[in-house]
Amino acid sequence: MATDDKDLFKKIVSHAKEYGFVYPSSEIYDGLQAVYDYGPYGAELKKNLKDIWWQSMTRLHANVVGLDAAIFMHPLTWKASGHVDSFNDPMIDNKDSKKRYRADTLIEDWAARLEAEGKPEKAQALVTEMNQLLEAENLTELRELIVREGISCPLSGTTNWTEVRQFNLMFSTEVGSVAEDASKIYLRPETAQGIFVNFLNVQKTARMKVPFGIAQIGKAFRNEIVARQFIFRMREFEQMEMQFFVRPGTEMDWYEQWRETRLRWHKALGIPAESLRIHPHEKLAHYANAALDIEFKFPFGFKEVEGIHSRTDFDLRSHQELSRKKQQYFDPELDENGKPYGNYIPYVVETSIGADRLFLMLLCSAYREETTGEGEEQKSRTYLKLHPALAPVKAAIFPLVKKDGLAEKAMAIYNELRHDFNLIYEEQQSIGKRYARQDQIGTPFCIAVDYDTMENDTVTIRYRDTMEQKRVPISALREEIGREVSAANIFKNL
Amino acid sequence: MATDDKDLFKKIVSHAKEYGFVYPSSEIYDGLQAVYDYGPYGAELKKNLKDIWWQSMTRLHANVVGLDAAIFMHPLTWKASGHVDSFNDPMIDNKDSKKRYRADTLIEDWAARLEAEGKPEKAQALVTEMNQLLEAENLTELRELIVREGISCPLSGTTNWTEVRQFNLMFSTEVGSVAEDASKIYLRPETAQGIFVNFLNVQKTARMKVPFGIAQIGKAFRNEIVARQFIFRMREFEQMEMQFFVRPGTEMDWYEQWRETRLRWHKALGIPAESLRIHPHEKLAHYANAALDIEFKFPFGFKEVEGIHSRTDFDLRSHQELSRKKQQYFDPELDENGKPYGNYIPYVVETSIGADRLFLMLLCSAYREETTGEGEEQKSRTYLKLHPALAPVKAAIFPLVKKDGLAEKAMAIYNELRHDFNLIYEEQQSIGKRYARQDQIGTPFCIAVDYDTMENDTVTIRYRDTMEQKRVPISALREEIGREVSAANIFKNL
Repeated sequence: MATDDKDLFKKIVSHAKEYGFVYPSSEIYDGLQAVYDYGPYGAELKKNLKDIWWQSMTRLHANVVGLDAAIFMHPLTWKASGHVDSFNDPMIDNKDSKKRYRADTLIEDWAARLEAEGKPEKAQALVTEMNQLLEAENLTELRELIVREGISCPLSGTTNWTEVRQFNLMFSTEVGSVAEDASKIYLRPETAQGIFVNFLNVQKTARMKVPFGIAQIGKAFRNEIVARQFIFRMREFEQMEMQFFVRPGTEMDWYEQWRETRLRWHKALGIPAESLRIHPHEKLAHYANAALDIEFKFPFGFKEVEGIHSRTDFDLRSHQELSRKKQQYFDPELDENGKPYGNYIPYVVETSIGADRLFLMLLCSAYREETTGEGEEQKSRTYLKLHPALAPVKAAIFPLVKKDGLAEKAMAIYNELRHDFNLIYEEQQSIGKRYARQDQIGTPFCIAVDYDTMENDTVTIRYRDTMEQKRVPISALREEIGREVSAANIFKNL
Repeated sequence: MATDDKDLFKKIVSHAKEYGFVYPSSEIYDGLQAVYDYGPYGAELKKNLKDIWWQSMTRLHANVVGLDAAIFMHPLTWKASGHVDSFNDPMIDNKDSKKRYRADTLIEDWAARLEAEGKPEKAQALVTEMNQLLEAENLTELRELIVREGISCPLSGTTNWTEVRQFNLMFSTEVGSVAEDASKIYLRPETAQGIFVNFLNVQKTARMKVPFGIAQIGKAFRNEIVARQFIFRMREFEQMEMQFFVRPGTEMDWYEQWRETRLRWHKALGIPAESLRIHPHEKLAHYANAALDIEFKFPFGFKEVEGIHSRTDFDLRSHQELSRKKQQYFDPELDENGKPYGNYIPYVVETSIGADRLFLMLLCSAYREETTGEGEEQKSRTYLKLHPALAPVKAAIFPLVKKDGLAEKAMAIYNELRHDFNLIYEEQQSIGKRYARQDQIGTPFCIAVDYDTMENDTVTIRYRDTMEQKRVPISALREEIGREVSAANIFKNL
């Protein structure tokens, strides 16, 4: 990425740490690679994002219900889904540097170099050959390709390579009490399968009719070799997935409909249209007949935030085969010939979003550095322009000074409103510093109690984005704040 | 447990399955022992419980903030906490039945039998001796005790026992790409340590002053040997923990204060006082100087739902020693001699609740079977008397019949209110069956659209608990429902 973007991203990462949004995990033990913890403001922001998604899915769509399946699942689940056999990355080690690489990444980087050197045709041929070998799972020839092209280790500069081996990305653990009777289980690498194995349970107990969806939020785990870019690619992460079950043959209509619905959703959160783009997949996964990513323009480039996938009946059919339990739905509606559609395995359109990536998108999109005034009057500030419905803290309440009953008055307002909103009460430091602090964590409203308040029960509201101040009666605060922070402001744009 | 209680518990478990609250995990593969999934209504109920807890902690207490730490932590965390060395159960196998037991449970059950046979003194002596051996970690003599007393396997009836061995309850997995450079990490067995290792990060970035608390909700994992009683003891479970950091010497005051606060909280959810009791621990854990359980009267007896523990400075001090990073707080407040309290490691009072147990408590407490009328008029019904703020669905909307525009009218009401509440629209079956269905999932209000609605824009509200009906204008619905389902009804009793 360009130096400016690199600097910007560094600033955002350190802002996240300094202002209580994201810390490296177990930092006192020098951290755990590719794992992060959410601090007080991060936890609130993430919770708000998850709540808005959950409500958008389960409340705004009459035919979508929620589910909360466990991380632990029966190991056959991952046999059926294909993860045991093919959730692999092809890895190769350089014997001199002892450094390990994904073989495909190594070749792609080499191709990019050829292209930069003015050899686009050679680069293209290389990638095509690689894709054929990957498709055929021919790891021996994949290694030969690397050797033949003279692709060297960026670290040691040598071509002294090991064999290429498949490395499964699932974490496993042993459940049970003794080695003899223990069974190997996996930490789920995606939440989707929890929905598929519960398809009939949900359909029957919640009496759903196709088309309908099941939404779920939960942790997933992948033993990523190259984990990087802060919380963008982590070994432990959170997904928000919705599987929508449809009549076979109607899946492309739903695919297009969900693409539009989800794109609207991101815009409703306040993400500018020009920072979002649709990227259709060229290479489809084994389970899909159509797939696209919704990408956001991070400082490190356009990257996937959400995927929309038409998964066909691959998953339900695989589970039916392995479990020998019918995964069918009886559709009583009449087709054009007046006959019921009858029994079928539904097709599935999936919307799958990374909650942590969404968080990072919001943080990057909200981060603002601003300079106002000129000469000696020049002032600069940093603030987070988060949608008020997403902001971790809705309002901060400050007494101008602690004495003369102002602190008690401010605390009374705090106590009056704290059941309804997440608030901060702050009486230390100058009022300017207190405003600046709230800007940093993205608090949309600051309420100041001054000497006038003691006389006429009015306060000033200071707005984060414009820094304007307005005098309002205390009695109007709940309505004033409530109107702005309501999730309805997001929902109405969906 | 008594037959009646056993029957009741069975009914509750099957109700939970049949009405979309809790399913056995991966049921199509015959389940995974001691793991469960939450269905649509269970997921909503659990989310409501977690939200109420989160808000009670972080909004109603100005000095409590949230955190969301990862499940994966640096392995030294569990060395410092004592889990690597002592989070063990002593296990023994019967060679004939091949059945494994916890040695202490085996002895305790034997003692209970002695007591039932009129030998209370012998029973007491047995338990005392066992406790001494456990304390001394003398597993050899613990086995000898079992053999000497002639304690036999309930299954084979023999005393053909193996050695007693310690079995660690933590799940482990390997992180990293190759066996050589991979490290063994654990799935956290409690969420508390995520709070301790982040103590200074949170204190500094959220600018907290002692006394203050950090609240967290998240999954934890224990490889329980004897996992039973439905979702009461699971291998994967969810905790809601709050660690409150206080000045050393003040911990007993806070311990008592949190005990009262938490007890009020359970009552505010609608749990009757007589179903709750406080059980102080006789044997304290190595980190505690006071501890108690808040117990609920489940059908299988009074059992722990929440623990209040005075953990001293054990955890922070252990982390300081192992990480060599000071875990101190500078307290600027003045003591009785007018000097600042200065640097110290805070003491900790913890409130720790199992979200799944809380869920089960609510389900058991809400489950009602009721018979009304006599003779041919006799009717029975089952319903869940959940607090409206906790109920998974707030209201159901029914057109009396589908024709004559009633369905469209009902759907218009649904669309008008769905941004604010989780609703169900249902037009199938008789109105009586639709009411019965909503009773089963605990929906507090059913709204029926009939022919009068078409003329005067009024509907009937039918109340779950009393089955009474009231006619109200459509325009009053939002206010009518909103007032009853507001979390403020719970908060005001705290």
